[in-house]
Amino acid sequence: MSQPAYDVIAIGNAIVDVMAPSSDDQIGQLALVRGAMTLVDADRAATLYDAMGPAREISGGSAANTLAGLAALGGRCAFIGQVADDQLGAVFAHDIRAAGIAFATPPRPGEPPTARCLIFVTPDGQRTMNTFLGASQFLPAGAIDADAIAAASVLYLEGYLWDPEEPRAAMRRAIAAARDAGREVAFTLSDPFVIARHGEDFRHLLREGLIDILFANEAELAALTGAAEIDAGLAALAPLVPVLVVARSEKGAVALRRGERAAVAAEPVAAVVDTTGAGDLFAAGFLFGHVRGEPLARCLERGAIAAAEVISHWGARPEADLNALMTRRLG
Amino acid sequence: MSQPAYDVIAIGNAIVDVMAPSSDDQIGQLALVRGAMTLVDADRAATLYDAMGPAREISGGSAANTLAGLAALGGRCAFIGQVADDQLGAVFAHDIRAAGIAFATPPRPGEPPTARCLIFVTPDGQRTMNTFLGASQFLPAGAIDADAIAAASVLYLEGYLWDPEEPRAAMRRAIAAARDAGREVAFTLSDPFVIARHGEDFRHLLREGLIDILFANEAELAALTGAAEIDAGLAALAPLVPVLVVARSEKGAVALRRGERAAVAAEPVAAVVDTTGAGDLFAAGFLFGHVRGEPLARCLERGAIAAAEVISHWGARPEADLNALMTRRLG
Repeated sequence: MSQPAYDVIAIGNAIVDVMAPSSDDQIGQLALVRGAMTLVDADRAATLYDAMGPAREISGGSAANTLAGLAALGGRCAFIGQVADDQLGAVFAHDIRAAGIAFATPPRPGEPPTARCLIFVTPDGQRTMNTFLGASQFLPAGAIDADAIAAASVLYLEGYLWDPEEPRAAMRRAIAAARDAGREVAFTLSDPFVIARHGEDFRHLLREGLIDILFANEAELAALTGAAEIDAGLAALAPLVPVLVVARSEKGAVALRRGERAAVAAEPVAAVVDTTGAGDLFAAGFLFGHVRGEPLARCLERGAIAAAEVISHWGARPEADLNALMTRRLG
Repeated sequence: MSQPAYDVIAIGNAIVDVMAPSSDDQIGQLALVRGAMTLVDADRAATLYDAMGPAREISGGSAANTLAGLAALGGRCAFIGQVADDQLGAVFAHDIRAAGIAFATPPRPGEPPTARCLIFVTPDGQRTMNTFLGASQFLPAGAIDADAIAAASVLYLEGYLWDPEEPRAAMRRAIAAARDAGREVAFTLSDPFVIARHGEDFRHLLREGLIDILFANEAELAALTGAAEIDAGLAALAPLVPVLVVARSEKGAVALRRGERAAVAAEPVAAVVDTTGAGDLFAAGFLFGHVRGEPLARCLERGAIAAAEVISHWGARPEADLNALMTRRLG
């Protein structure tokens, strides 16, 4: 087996975040699900955008954010995701390539437009996301390049993208290609709503031994296992997946790797500005350590530092020099 | 004469800023004019965008930024400017309306697209701007609504927009409408390159008594008057314009109003992040005091506080509560 050209290749939504400060009152008035990700259609997106304050646009997408973190650390990455042939699609493509990430999926002509996520950020830094999936949900299975999958140590899949039918088929094809090439498959559960709709698929993938690394938060772990207690949830999944990582927000994170258990506290943050991307950057830090074969605790520490950086400013992509931050903290 | 519905109506470029951190090395490699605004065509814009790091998009445009500051202070504002019927045009229109500013200019169908300004921000916070004017340069004279002009205490004009022919005709029409209605006309010189190309026009407008309030920085004052010393420049213009405001960056600002002179020091800033919009927000603070008939020194203080806020974060539109800042500083 040749030396992989990429550390991680990811398949995810290709989304531009449209972000504005909000208030608890506004969250209530618009009947938003505070802290969650809600899929919206074009009409609802237009209504919410009209109600939103002056905004800024910053490229997002869960798996794409994770790659941006990995690339900022020096990881070699490639992304597969569907934009439309429009201005927001050009913004997404620019930003991911400018981050040093290979991105070869051609834009999709015509309607619908590139995906956008309308993010209302309350004064506590909590983000409430409303995603119009647009072109992103039409990622065709043909976009999966088996050679590119085989060229990466890890295939990273975004649970959000399991919901629409075409990308789900693309991801199944990618999993097969990764397994054929002897690569690891990592999966992030993304949101409890995805598990509510596709939990049986995920449990099946796990039982089949098709997932090597599973990322979840506490709510997702509970949704997938039916266990309210985190330790029960961990115990239920541990036999099914070699590496299990559960992010716990301000409580830090815990991971199991082939019988070994490690935990990390949350990294202190001077001021939480915008929590968008916290889980994505946690995964970035963890994977960076993982592909280098670092101890489990060190992988978690890297995750915590990357997550702390991204919640200290607007947007879900890193701004500070993550390597310098980690060197300062970890030596 | 009825009570004006607006404090300020402005005509300016309708631009979305595309901003990324840069380095002095990159500024040199790309042969950019550090700290200046350079007009670029579509090819050069594409080249520069390819070279730019991951970016964020935030609505800009000089006069539009000034209105955003005024509106944040509680001023009643309207904007006239030309976007295309595209995604960036929708972003600009959303952001200005969401700031509480009336904006009725219909988008322009077809090519060229909405204007964008590629802004490279060096570690000292200095912004180097490269503007693709796109649709903005096709603002037609027909977009000027004389009733709207008459409904505002002050007509505010952006010098940048004097360069393309159609908007220049529109601004001449707007000046006539303002004068007919007995309103004040304010003009910002924007950049020395505009004066190099249109200085004779500006001197003519001043000699005709068509400008009541003139905003300049030191370089623009020198370019317009030919006087290297600021006092000589002020003395040359004072007889021609009732209110003359010269922003001097870290040296503060000075103003003359019908024989009265006042000056203000620059407001301290913890960290200069991005100087984009400093002059625009200075004008916002000044005009807010001016339309309320405040003392000249107070108008300058408001300008300095608004400018300090906008250079402390990314983007040329205010983020903090400007009224609260001013109340804290000025009582």
